[in-house]
Amino acid sequence: MLNTIKGFISSGELLKGGFGIELESLRIDKDGILSSKEHPDVFGDKLENPYITTDFSESQVEMITPVMKTSKEVFDALNVLYDIVSLEIGEEYLWPESMPSIIGENINIAKYSSNKKGNEARSYREGLAKKYGVKKQLISGIHYNFSFNETVIKKLYEKREDKNVSYRDFKDSIYLKVTRNYLRYRWFIVYLLGASPIIHESYEKEDLNKINKINKINCDIYGDKEAISYRNSKLGYKNSTNLYADYDSVRGYIESLDSFVYNNYISNYKEFYSQIRLKAKDNSNIKESLLKDGINYLEIRSIDINPLERVGISLNDLKFVHLFTLFLLNEEENSYKLWQEEALKNQLDISILGLEDINLLRNGESISKRQWAHYILEKMSIINSDFNLNLDEIIEEKKEMVNDYKKTYAYKIKDEVSKQGFMNFNLNLSKKYKKEAYNNRFRLQGFEDLELSTQILMKEAIKRGIKTTVVDRNDNFISLERGGKKEYVKQATKTSKDSYITVLIMENKVVTKKVLAENNIKVPNGKEFTNIEEAKLNIDDFIGKPSVIKPKSTNFGLGISIFPDGASKNDLHEGLKLAFNNDNTVLVEEFIKGKEYRFLVIDDKVCGILHRVPANCIGDGEKSIRELIDIKNQSSLRGKGYKKPLEKIALDDNAKLFLKQRGLDFDYIPKKDEVVYLRENSNISTGGDSIDYTDLIPEKFKEIAIKAARAAKAKICGVDMMLEDYKSEDSPYAIIEINFNPAIHIHSYPYKGTERNIAKEVLKLLNLI
Amino acid sequence: MLNTIKGFISSGELLKGGFGIELESLRIDKDGILSSKEHPDVFGDKLENPYITTDFSESQVEMITPVMKTSKEVFDALNVLYDIVSLEIGEEYLWPESMPSIIGENINIAKYSSNKKGNEARSYREGLAKKYGVKKQLISGIHYNFSFNETVIKKLYEKREDKNVSYRDFKDSIYLKVTRNYLRYRWFIVYLLGASPIIHESYEKEDLNKINKINKINCDIYGDKEAISYRNSKLGYKNSTNLYADYDSVRGYIESLDSFVYNNYISNYKEFYSQIRLKAKDNSNIKESLLKDGINYLEIRSIDINPLERVGISLNDLKFVHLFTLFLLNEEENSYKLWQEEALKNQLDISILGLEDINLLRNGESISKRQWAHYILEKMSIINSDFNLNLDEIIEEKKEMVNDYKKTYAYKIKDEVSKQGFMNFNLNLSKKYKKEAYNNRFRLQGFEDLELSTQILMKEAIKRGIKTTVVDRNDNFISLERGGKKEYVKQATKTSKDSYITVLIMENKVVTKKVLAENNIKVPNGKEFTNIEEAKLNIDDFIGKPSVIKPKSTNFGLGISIFPDGASKNDLHEGLKLAFNNDNTVLVEEFIKGKEYRFLVIDDKVCGILHRVPANCIGDGEKSIRELIDIKNQSSLRGKGYKKPLEKIALDDNAKLFLKQRGLDFDYIPKKDEVVYLRENSNISTGGDSIDYTDLIPEKFKEIAIKAARAAKAKICGVDMMLEDYKSEDSPYAIIEINFNPAIHIHSYPYKGTERNIAKEVLKLLNLI
Repeated sequence: MLNTIKGFISSGELLKGGFGIELESLRIDKDGILSSKEHPDVFGDKLENPYITTDFSESQVEMITPVMKTSKEVFDALNVLYDIVSLEIGEEYLWPESMPSIIGENINIAKYSSNKKGNEARSYREGLAKKYGVKKQLISGIHYNFSFNETVIKKLYEKREDKNVSYRDFKDSIYLKVTRNYLRYRWFIVYLLGASPIIHESYEKEDLNKINKINKINCDIYGDKEAISYRNSKLGYKNSTNLYADYDSVRGYIESLDSFVYNNYISNYKEFYSQIRLKAKDNSNIKESLLKDGINYLEIRSIDINPLERVGISLNDLKFVHLFTLFLLNEEENSYKLWQEEALKNQLDISILGLEDINLLRNGESISKRQWAHYILEKMSIINSDFNLNLDEIIEEKKEMVNDYKKTYAYKIKDEVSKQGFMNFNLNLSKKYKKEAYNNRFRLQGFEDLELSTQILMKEAIKRGIKTTVVDRNDNFISLERGGKKEYVKQATKTSKDSYITVLIMENKVVTKKVLAENNIKVPNGKEFTNIEEAKLNIDDFIGKPSVIKPKSTNFGLGISIFPDGASKNDLHEGLKLAFNNDNTVLVEEFIKGKEYRFLVIDDKVCGILHRVPANCIGDGEKSIRELIDIKNQSSLRGKGYKKPLEKIALDDNAKLFLKQRGLDFDYIPKKDEVVYLRENSNISTGGDSIDYTDLIPEKFKEIAIKAARAAKAKICGVDMMLEDYKSEDSPYAIIEINFNPAIHIHSYPYKGTERNIAKEVLKLLNLI
Repeated sequence: MLNTIKGFISSGELLKGGFGIELESLRIDKDGILSSKEHPDVFGDKLENPYITTDFSESQVEMITPVMKTSKEVFDALNVLYDIVSLEIGEEYLWPESMPSIIGENINIAKYSSNKKGNEARSYREGLAKKYGVKKQLISGIHYNFSFNETVIKKLYEKREDKNVSYRDFKDSIYLKVTRNYLRYRWFIVYLLGASPIIHESYEKEDLNKINKINKINCDIYGDKEAISYRNSKLGYKNSTNLYADYDSVRGYIESLDSFVYNNYISNYKEFYSQIRLKAKDNSNIKESLLKDGINYLEIRSIDINPLERVGISLNDLKFVHLFTLFLLNEEENSYKLWQEEALKNQLDISILGLEDINLLRNGESISKRQWAHYILEKMSIINSDFNLNLDEIIEEKKEMVNDYKKTYAYKIKDEVSKQGFMNFNLNLSKKYKKEAYNNRFRLQGFEDLELSTQILMKEAIKRGIKTTVVDRNDNFISLERGGKKEYVKQATKTSKDSYITVLIMENKVVTKKVLAENNIKVPNGKEFTNIEEAKLNIDDFIGKPSVIKPKSTNFGLGISIFPDGASKNDLHEGLKLAFNNDNTVLVEEFIKGKEYRFLVIDDKVCGILHRVPANCIGDGEKSIRELIDIKNQSSLRGKGYKKPLEKIALDDNAKLFLKQRGLDFDYIPKKDEVVYLRENSNISTGGDSIDYTDLIPEKFKEIAIKAARAAKAKICGVDMMLEDYKSEDSPYAIIEINFNPAIHIHSYPYKGTERNIAKEVLKLLNLI
């Protein structure tokens, strides 16, 4: 089928589509025992958070990515959700595989708000518990939702044989074909991605009898050396009766589901546990929507959670599954009647015997698993090369898994379990993944090109179930939506809450000073000049006094001269020259002694106070500067090119010169507790340290910062204050400037001190939480 | 006195001070008859507008400048007020001199809101009418309020002799000295600035007997050839009894005023019609304030309105009066006891006999007017040269007025009156000044360096009595204040009413389009690219279709390619190249046919619609392009360098080339009604015409523009809409972009069509009116 559009579609278009992953995962304690705690509050109402909710039990987190356009994007989105959840479950961990961990006494069925929707969700779960048992409900998996790129379907439609078919019917026929083929070939997915070959003894023992070939491996686990996926075996989560729906038409499908309900095999469509599902535009009214709008996408449900991957599936496997769906679309069908029964048998056989060289049934005839697998891979390979999909490596990887069962996930898992023990194997992974999530905490995977502040805000919004969309990536422009209320935000702190004029007031130092002074807030005394000759005639007042000369509008420190101990007339004139080289208007101001603190004020509240210190190291009396910096640079907070909250300290010519002027070099060994600075300026961008002072500075100065923000009517701003003695209420102070668009990441992830959840304050300001 | 600070103060500092002018002016009809209409509503409550109010009668406008720092600034401020009032009094004019015009039957005493303050103001005026007669109340003049530069007073204080005196007392002593000296030397001001040598017969005839030397000059006027200022004569506005206050101390002054009140000479301090007044910080509680804060400034009240000047006084005379006050400060005093009586006699003599070579009394001794005048000018000249004040020319001018009475304003006025007749002379001037005001209507004198839009907004605010302050001149940053409510505005349309994110949405074309499309507003279909290779692969859809390629964020038309009739693949690729040279993100869009209209939307209302046409001329079958353009350029609307609403059309190389390509040159004589364009682009900055379409475009499109503004939540924006046929409701349309910071002057003063008062809409939006 695909060959009709060969040459008419780019690889990029064919690799696009709609992809969404649902990942279920059990919360466990440090010993691997299923959590009896409730779903964390921070995720909000389970029925409202589109990204993070629960499945059957309180302890079964469900992560749901939005629909993404590529496998990479959906993989990143899943990572984001995983990282968020990992860090919001306190001392708990996420169990890394499909079959449950140690099931204790308490399995709390998920609780909901007491409204109609909530009550329905609850009573549905209670019904399931009764019918299938609570333990079975804990089996977790990955649901892979996908649709083909609409452009691809359109091109196929253009090249269709039957010119009388409508687009809508054509599209349905494509998805139905893929569904049927998926059912036929699903054994292959179970073989390759199956990853649940072991069952803990706390799982329903009576159930084990359903399978002949299962043994107690050691004191607490059951399994068998040929098994691949107990989740996809008879022990897994399936309807009590084998149900074969009609997949020839949408109408037929619906009629068969209706008959299953009518015959009480299932209570509703949702209970039809097929390995693949037809999905509609509106799944809350699936019957009506399927009939009205046709098939919108498909949901593959056979994929086990792969404990070897943090998020349960690798990017390569996501790409592989997508290529597999293209194979299913392409592959002609056989008219063999009992195909559904045969496919089920193949699935069940593979799931418990798959690591053996078994035979399967193809259209009623026996075929070796290996031969059939190679056939499929060969066909996939052709698609790959026909469309230059560049997936050769992935196909090769799967070929090896076919040829050598030791390459399968199932084998690898059993191998590791035999070495480490079942609980250790899984717990080690859980802990490792949680640590990775922690190291990723300031990063939004897949959006690393965005500013850190934006990544942090988005992550917080996603966590809280706020619909988060990047509107313009280059511009760090996002939208945040909840309950019909939509807010646009640029660069994390540019919002609808600040007025335009407020920003312009902050942008203009002269105006800022006037506004602050009018509100009786101490600002440095100073004069403003627009002409250097006039300035020279009028700055005699500043001779010998601590003073600073700066261009009015620069924000990067260019053209600023500081004379902390007073300057001569000549110095002042030189300073003026430098400043006028950078702006038409120049300010000459008294210099306020002390250190500069950044007060981040959001909605009349000081959310963080930060002081910045130039790049430095602290001696231990043993290591050289070079070694000390090297150790400091290993912190996960430090990176290069603003990808992390802090920058690595460069041992560059500047630092070399700076040390040389002080009679030092990189090999100097600082004495214990000796602080050695490597440059003058305290910018974070040159390796400076950020230190949180939020709880250390007297309330009085916080109130002054708030007053300053109020004077400019700013809802979000950074107030830069000089304080001579930060510990004393009586310290002299002055406000140097107020900044719009203050960075939030420096407060969220400081070098030292408490990490402040600034993003939450922004969301609060926007009335989104 | 001043010599103590010679060398310690710059000319700039000495020439600074606090200056405020009050100008009274009578409204008259086209025949010179005093208006019986009420004070225009637009000026608001008379007791609240700090700039424009009434004095005694409804017809007596009073213009009050804010306190300005230099003579030039106060002169400009006065011009602004004059121009505003001139244009807001309909078909009426402002009478250009101090003595009243034709007084008809109705003299309406000023009306006030019926509240406590209003009732007091009204009953005070009713009392005056009873006591002095209504006609006398119509005499108008200039009040010159001034204070010395505080820096000057401080330097004088540093150099003082009596080291025990406090600064406050020292400052009082300075102002008291100047006051006494002003009284002594005031005859000189009457001589030089006197300009009321004629009285209309409709003025109180019975009063004329008070002066011996006055004659009927012709059928309707009275006067005498030696007279200078009837306003400063016995006929003028003065207390019934000669009152001599104590000017030796503030306390003495207050005691003497209290005794005048006690003895019923005056009903309150305000009624003490001295030629100079001590003024306090809080003049509504003058007694308390003078005692508490000392003298804050002085008010000189002898200056006649000079009809030869639009605003009643020239800039040179303002500078002269200031220099005169420095002379008064400097001049040592004589201890002659009857100085006040002598000074009054000198004033009265000069006012009716001043053009003769009379003698005056100085410290009890006779001295020729001329000799004394030269003495004063010589002393002023020394100050001028001691401090390099650069006022030589002005002193020279006054010397000539002393030496030759024909150079006096009084003589010149009488001379012109004898030639033109009294009413004609004054009416011609009134009309001329009104025309000048009209030609100045888009200009705020003294603020021509500000953007036109800001000048227009400020003018409208001042008109309505909103306190208007320039906060940062370079940035067109102003504040507007009324009733304790303060709004900052930058560039006329950047206000507190628009949120920051709204502006950022408008600034970003991609985001704008998404927001508009989400709100079902038609925008050109298009694609966005961040990479030229990707773009080339994906723009085949546009081949052969009308399209435009543009960089995402440029606002100056750079890098834009338009293909109205469709483009080849090659053309498109060239366009991409050009656009990518200007930005990292490029939009390829369908091109919408028709013309572009700018809809200015303020607060959900379309306040103006404008279409721009490239520089052009329209033939009359006789004149050449050169001549036609020359005539067009003479319009008062056209200037150079954005100082006027339209730019003069340049006959430059671009225009030459443009015509040449069409086989034309500047000497070509276009046929009658033939339109010849001189360039491609329709920018106003290159001489384009702006044409108002506000009333011509169907409501439907206005609603779309409003909807677009609402989508971006913009309170002020310019919506650029393409319309194929502006007359038809059914015309295809699309919104090209929404602009923040739209210029308002183009709508306020278009080349063709109705002038729209946009500034008023901005003030309304700000809740200031």
